[in-house]
This record gives sequence, C-alpha cells and structure tokens, in this order.
Amino acid sequence: MSDSAETNRFTVQPYEDVERFDVSTDVLVCGFGGAGGSAALEAALAGAEVVLFERASGSGGSTGMSSCEMYLGGSGGTSLQKELGYEDSTENMIAYLETALEERGDPEKIRTYVEGAADHYDWAVSLGVTYKPAVMLARDVVPLTDESLLFTGNERTEIFKRNAEPVPRGHVPSHEGDFGGRIFMDALTGAVEKAGVDIRYDSRVIRLLVKADGRVAGVVAREDNQERFYEARRGVVLASGGFIMNKEMTAKYIPEIHNWATPYGNPFDMGDGIRLGMAAGGSVINMDQAFLSFPLYPPAKLTNGIMVNVQGDRFVNEDAYLARLGHYSSLQDKQRVYLLVDQDDYDHPMYIERLDVVAVGDTIEEIERESGLFPEGALQETVAFYNKFAEKSEDPKFHKSPEWIKPLKAKPFALLDLSFENQTAVIMPGTKGPLTFSLGGLDTLPSGEVISVSGAVIPGLFAAGRVTAGLPRTSKGYASGMSVGDATFFGRLAGKSAASAGSSP
Amino acid sequence: MSDSAETNRFTVQPYEDVERFDVSTDVLVCGFGGAGGSAALEAALAGAEVVLFERASGSGGSTGMSSCEMYLGGSGGTSLQKELGYEDSTENMIAYLETALEERGDPEKIRTYVEGAADHYDWAVSLGVTYKPAVMLARDVVPLTDESLLFTGNERTEIFKRNAEPVPRGHVPSHEGDFGGRIFMDALTGAVEKAGVDIRYDSRVIRLLVKADGRVAGVVAREDNQERFYEARRGVVLASGGFIMNKEMTAKYIPEIHNWATPYGNPFDMGDGIRLGMAAGGSVINMDQAFLSFPLYPPAKLTNGIMVNVQGDRFVNEDAYLARLGHYSSLQDKQRVYLLVDQDDYDHPMYIERLDVVAVGDTIEEIERESGLFPEGALQETVAFYNKFAEKSEDPKFHKSPEWIKPLKAKPFALLDLSFENQTAVIMPGTKGPLTFSLGGLDTLPSGEVISVSGAVIPGLFAAGRVTAGLPRTSKGYASGMSVGDATFFGRLAGKSAASAGSSP
Repeated sequence: MSDSAETNRFTVQPYEDVERFDVSTDVLVCGFGGAGGSAALEAALAGAEVVLFERASGSGGSTGMSSCEMYLGGSGGTSLQKELGYEDSTENMIAYLETALEERGDPEKIRTYVEGAADHYDWAVSLGVTYKPAVMLARDVVPLTDESLLFTGNERTEIFKRNAEPVPRGHVPSHEGDFGGRIFMDALTGAVEKAGVDIRYDSRVIRLLVKADGRVAGVVAREDNQERFYEARRGVVLASGGFIMNKEMTAKYIPEIHNWATPYGNPFDMGDGIRLGMAAGGSVINMDQAFLSFPLYPPAKLTNGIMVNVQGDRFVNEDAYLARLGHYSSLQDKQRVYLLVDQDDYDHPMYIERLDVVAVGDTIEEIERESGLFPEGALQETVAFYNKFAEKSEDPKFHKSPEWIKPLKAKPFALLDLSFENQTAVIMPGTKGPLTFSLGGLDTLPSGEVISVSGAVIPGLFAAGRVTAGLPRTSKGYASGMSVGDATFFGRLAGKSAASAGSSP
Repeated sequence: MSDSAETNRFTVQPYEDVERFDVSTDVLVCGFGGAGGSAALEAALAGAEVVLFERASGSGGSTGMSSCEMYLGGSGGTSLQKELGYEDSTENMIAYLETALEERGDPEKIRTYVEGAADHYDWAVSLGVTYKPAVMLARDVVPLTDESLLFTGNERTEIFKRNAEPVPRGHVPSHEGDFGGRIFMDALTGAVEKAGVDIRYDSRVIRLLVKADGRVAGVVAREDNQERFYEARRGVVLASGGFIMNKEMTAKYIPEIHNWATPYGNPFDMGDGIRLGMAAGGSVINMDQAFLSFPLYPPAKLTNGIMVNVQGDRFVNEDAYLARLGHYSSLQDKQRVYLLVDQDDYDHPMYIERLDVVAVGDTIEEIERESGLFPEGALQETVAFYNKFAEKSEDPKFHKSPEWIKPLKAKPFALLDLSFENQTAVIMPGTKGPLTFSLGGLDTLPSGEVISVSGAVIPGLFAAGRVTAGLPRTSKGYASGMSVGDATFFGRLAGKSAASAGSSP
C-alpha cells in the first residue's frame, strides 16, 4: 500500500480493448466490509454469479473494526425493540432523522431505510448474529456488558424531543466487550461463502472497464503483482469504504478536519471506490462532511459539567451525542474547549486518553486565575448564570435536559482541557484530536445506482457504504449505527440491483 | 433560459464524430465576463485566433454587475498604493491572504497572484480604466464618491494585524456611484474587439468536443436554435461564472446556504462551465463554500454596537468585514442575530432594506423584556461584561479594535433584528437573507489548466473565474476584490496558456 500521488490516479479503460478476460461473471463487488459483503450475499442469493474483491487479506473493512451498532427502528419497532417494550413508528423515526440531518438528509434514502430497517434487523439475526434482549439506558458509548439495545444519538435531548419521541435505536451484537463488528463480519463472511461467492483477497481493483456505450462492464484488479481482467455481465458494485485514510483527499475535501482530527477506519479507506466511480463519470456530494467523535462521557456524570470555549461561554447542550459535541466543538476558536465540573462529578472521560486538568480551585475566580485562559470574570459570569437557572432545572440558553442540570457548587472545581490539540482517543493512543471518518462520496439512488456528473444513471455501476453519500450526512446529526446500518442496508439493495441489472447486449 | 433538469445534463461528444466544423480557430473562450474577456484578450494578443462565446446579448457577466473592486498590492505596492503613500510588500500581502484563507488557501495561486498583482493594476489602467488617486479610509462597502483605494477586508482588525500590516488593497474604478464593473467591462470589451476577437453573443456552449486521446478540441454551441460546431486548435477556456443561480446545484453543494441566502450574480451563473468541465472529467473542489454578504455598515458607527445571538451572547468582533460577519452569523442558531446599539449610534444600515427594531428601552432589562428573545438576564450580563472592558477600550472576548469600542450607555437602547430570515439587501428588494455567490468550482493550476478527477491535467482545457476554485475560498476570509481580481488575473493567465498550448496532432 502506498499513499503516493500515483495511487490516486484512477482512470477507466475501454472494455473493448480487453483481449481476453481472466474471469467472466455476473456481478463484481469491490470491498468486503459490511457494504460489500451484504451486496455480494444478496446478489448471490438472487441467483447471480458473484466475485468479491478485497484489498486486505481478510474480510472486515471498517465495519469489522466497529462495534457494529446499527441504527434501526420504524414499522412499529424491530423485533428487539418490541421485545423490550419499545414502540417505534416509521413516521417517528423519519421525524427523528429529518431533525438530525436537516437540509442534508436525502428524503428518499431516509424513507427507504426506515421502512426496511425493522426487517433489516431480522436479516442480521438470520445470519446468526445474536442480540441480547436487554436495554442499556445509561449515557454511554457502547455497552461493555452485553445489552443489545441502547440510545446512540440525540433522541433524549430537548431539541430532538420536540420533534420525535425518544426511542433507543442502537442495535449491537451481544458480546461482553466491543467486538460487535467482528461478530457480524464473521457471520456475514460465513453466509457469503455459503452462498458460493468467489472471494478474492489481496486483490485491489484499479480500473473500471467501460463499454463504448457507457456501461460499466468489468474491472481490472491487481493480484499477485499482475493485472487481471474481470468481466461483469450485469453490474459492478463499489463498496470499498470512505477516503479518510487518503491524505491527498482529506486535504482537498475536508481541509480543516484534515488539520486537527485523527482518521479512523481501516488502512484501505483510501477512497479507491470513490475515485474509481469518479473516473467513470460519477458525481460526488457531501464531500465536506465527516463524523467527529468527542466522547466526553462515560462516565455520564461529566454531563453535569459545562463545556466552555476560550471566551468562557458555553456553546452546546452538554447532553448532546458525542458526534454533535464534536461538531459544535469544531466551530469554536481554534477548537479549544474546556469542561468545568465540580467535586461531585470530577472524573476522567473513559475514552479520552490524555487530558490536562488545567486548574483546580475552590472558587471559579480561582479557576480563572489559575488557568489564565479566559477574560477576567467571563467564566464566573457563565457559571453564575448557569447556576441561577440550574436551581430551577432549567437551561434557557442551550436546553440541556433537566436530568443533567445541577448547580456547580461542590468545591473544589476542576477545569479539564478538551481542546482538540490536547485530546487523544483511548483507542488510538498517541494521536491528536477527535476521531473522524468521511461522510461524502458518490451520489447514488436508494437502489445503489450511481449518478453521473451529468445527472444520468451510469449503467452497470452501483455503490454502497462510505463510498457513497448515504444516510449519515453530518456529525451534527450523526447517531452511531447510521453508518453500519446504511452500509449493510443499502449494500443489500445494491447487490440486488446489480444482480437484476440488464445484462449487456 | 431554463432551470430544468434537462439543462443540467451536460455530456461530452467525441471530436471525431463531427463531420464538418462551422468554425475552426485557435482558442475558444466560453463566457464574456471579467475572466473570459481577460482570457480572450490575452490569447488574441499572444497571436491566437479567438472566438468568444457569451450566453447573454452583451458582455459583462457578474463582473459587470459588480463595483469591480480588485484586491491588489504586493511588490512594494501598486502604482496607486505608492502614489498614496502606502507600501505593500509581497510577503505582507501573502501573510494577509494566508491568515484569511487558512487551510483553504492555495499557496501556489496566492503567490502567483500576489507577485503579479501590482502589474495587474497597471494592466487595468492600460485598458483605459481610470482610478482616482484618493483613498477612502472609512468603514464602508464601496465609495459612493470617487476615491479609488479602500480597505475591503479584515486588515485593520486585531487578529489580522497580528500577522500582517494593514494596507488598503481594494482598487475600484473612479466614478461617483457604484458602476465600476460597467466601466471596466466597457474598457475590456473595447480592447477585446480591437484585438480582433470574434465575439458571439446569444450563444450557449452546450458540449465540449473531446478527442479519443482525451484532448479537448472544440465545443458545440447553440446559436439561433441551431447547434454549431467549433474547433479549437489550441485550447478551450471555460469562464462562464459560478453556479449560484442553479438551484439544483446550490441544493446539492451548499444546502444550508441554499435555504437561507439570496443568490447574487448574473442570471447565467448556472454552473454551465463547471458542468461542462465535470463532464470532461474535471475535478471540482471547495464546492461547499460561498461568499455571504452581511453589510452591517455603513454607517460605520453601528460597529460600536454589539451583535448577539439568541443566547444573548456575542459571537464575533463587530468590526470584521461584512463577509466575515456573514460567516459567523451563519453559524448561529437558526441564523438569528441581533444588533444592540445605544442612542448615539442608532441608525439604519444603508445596505439592509428591511430591518425590524424589535425593542427600544432605557435599560437592557427593558430591551430583554420587550424583545422576549433572550433568556432572562443574558443580554444584561453580556452588556455589563462588554461595558466593563469597554471602559478600558478592551474586548478580551472577540478583540474588536479599540476604535470601535465604547461602553453602551446612552439611553435609549435599540435592538435591531438582523436575522437572516428578516434581512433584505437594499440592492435586491424583496429577497431574504444575505447575498451569496459560489466559491467552489473546477480545480485548476495557476496556469488555468484543469485538473481531472484522476489528478492529471486535461489537455486543451483551461478555466478561470468562478468556474474555478480560485483565490477566494471562504466567506470567513473573503475580502472584496478577491473574486474580480482573481477572475481577471487568472483569466489572463488562462488565455495565455490556451494560446500557447500545443496544438493537436
């Protein structure tokens, strides 16, 4: 693997130039993570002959690294939600997603996803993935015990509650510890193998083959240092992940985030599929957006503190989901943000490795003086204002939920430096800033068909997962499980679409 | 003209398919605004035979609508700066632009531009454009008298002064009233005609012609309801403006801005050139960025007031340039922002047509109560904090310059609603929100060569102006004159490049 400019140069090759195909099949799928595996499986189950390429030596992709939360609900509730007594109407889930995604949501994808999400849960179960009918209601990131249902977004915050009834929608495979992705990918890999998919590991797709009439009809893959030619009689599915590991692309498309965040994903999230698709005329959208992880919690009690910027002002409801905390923190001057807590709530955020306590004091005035960070009196006023309303369990500025509102009173107080340049994720020691992955990519229909820069469907070409701009479109409105949910759900649709695509004349 | 999906579908056509060319020439330039006119002129002066297409019935484009400020300096100063006693080193101007553009600046374009900017001024003079050697130092938008040099950015604000010596760099043709664009375009049009350029008005370029080897070698233009075929022996220059008038594109690339701002430009800023370039494999960057105009001033004394959001908090140094005020205002909750002024400074912003005075009162407490907009006490605290430091001419939170700092004391106070949904620009009555134009487009080298999605130069294709991601990349760091300066400067380079491009075999 190399990150040189050379590897960033993808072009298409005329199908007609190929003298002899090494393999001719119905459907070619590029990438064996959640999206690609799901696509290959459905294509094979629909009767297609399928070859599945993976650049790594095994299946997994970024789904395999994740906890495999899937954001599911609607249709009255998934089997798991129902079993645990939660009702979740399709309209309620749509209302939530529309509130979360604002102008960036794709209405067709939202509706298609929500209408099929409950069935999608049953599909995951059918693969052999086990879920434990227990709910974790704590404010946490992933259950380190084995509950399978949890809140993974902003559902319980005041702003969202105005528009949608809070329901937990994070579905995570049951296992003590954070191994959901491996469990799911093992199950999916088993199913893919059983379905007769021809899997090619250590194989990198480097070019699409395009017919004179514009139809994508094959790929060139580099295997054992040789270029091999594969024909796709029906369709090619791009599912090789986002571009967060490609520094040339992050500098170009997310220049600010590129500067202060840490790429999170598998090493092959190099944007290969996006660039293959672009070379074939595919349009990309939402390229400026990325997920940002700011796990202020657990422990949840830190939520009782207040986050402030260098002006000494608050800027977000501290009970927001970690991705929304990341979004609002990123907008502060030089991404410098701090948490003030009192003695009762002081603790170390579990997911942040390095963290400076910049001041401890019996009064806010002492905190100000010791930290030397704020204009004189600014933090004192912020705390006084906050406390005045906190006595009434109110937060008129940012609408933190009453559950997390209490006056900051217990001495001593501590000020923690959560500035991006001082922040290191526990799961990536030695790094700097919040973890990030890309949320932009090829513009697709819910079917997985790729839209060209001229607005037409590119025949024979499909995409799913973080190769595309899918369901999740912003960190501001991100809920965990949106990305794996999207990748596997629309991966399946893309596989079905490719399998039934009109074969070339 | 139609904004239908149909007009958004550009494709390329094989050059080899053309049976007979209506016209065969060296260089084809698409668009006769500042960028295209400059490109055509330089190409012709370099000895090339040039055809210049314009979709409208006359020259002008968005440059013609503008005041034709050009942001110029460096090399010790332009002739005008020097005559007025201002020195402006190349490094000082680069330092300013780097501070302004942050991660988004293109270092090569910045350096190329700054090194040539002083000469570019002399070029404008050589066209016959007249500038009056007088400087306007007031905080204003354009001189309504006839001074030709002014500050058009954030040069004099504290944050920028730390990195670069403030020098006025806005160069505007001398004329009482805001007609600089017409003056400049008339002069440029005269020069283009004199240089023997073949100008085709009412002609819309609808396809690029591409050779089998990838070279762009002509265009198809629709004229008199017929398609005509033009061959370019050397190169094609795309210079037909940005995409701010294309609703499909603004919804896709700047969805938030699309929702609350008013497109500003000529009716043919439909992204034609961007889409022609994309169809030929051109890469687009910076597509999420746009200029936002928030002319809080003149009168300048309004700068003595404080801008607050719905939390009752300040969020920007009020002496920032109008584009930076637009940027920071856009980040506030629902783009709701207000200006609090005291009796001494109350006035109506000259460029904002509609504006509600939401409260008048002898105390801030009265303002809070009457407006009903803020959490109780929030605005009072903000004003008290601001005043405390204002007594010492300090603004420790946002670093407004001392010149604009004075305690808010003179009764009565007034609160003006500047929320985007209530804001209407004087120059576009009946509209809503700040004026905006796009700052994203084709990725080009300083030479004007267009970079493809696979990272290579597209032979035969050049671009300049808002068809490209040029010098200006953000509203946060925008200075007026950056766009017209960029369009004409890099337009000239693109014209020269096209004229000297290796002709097709």
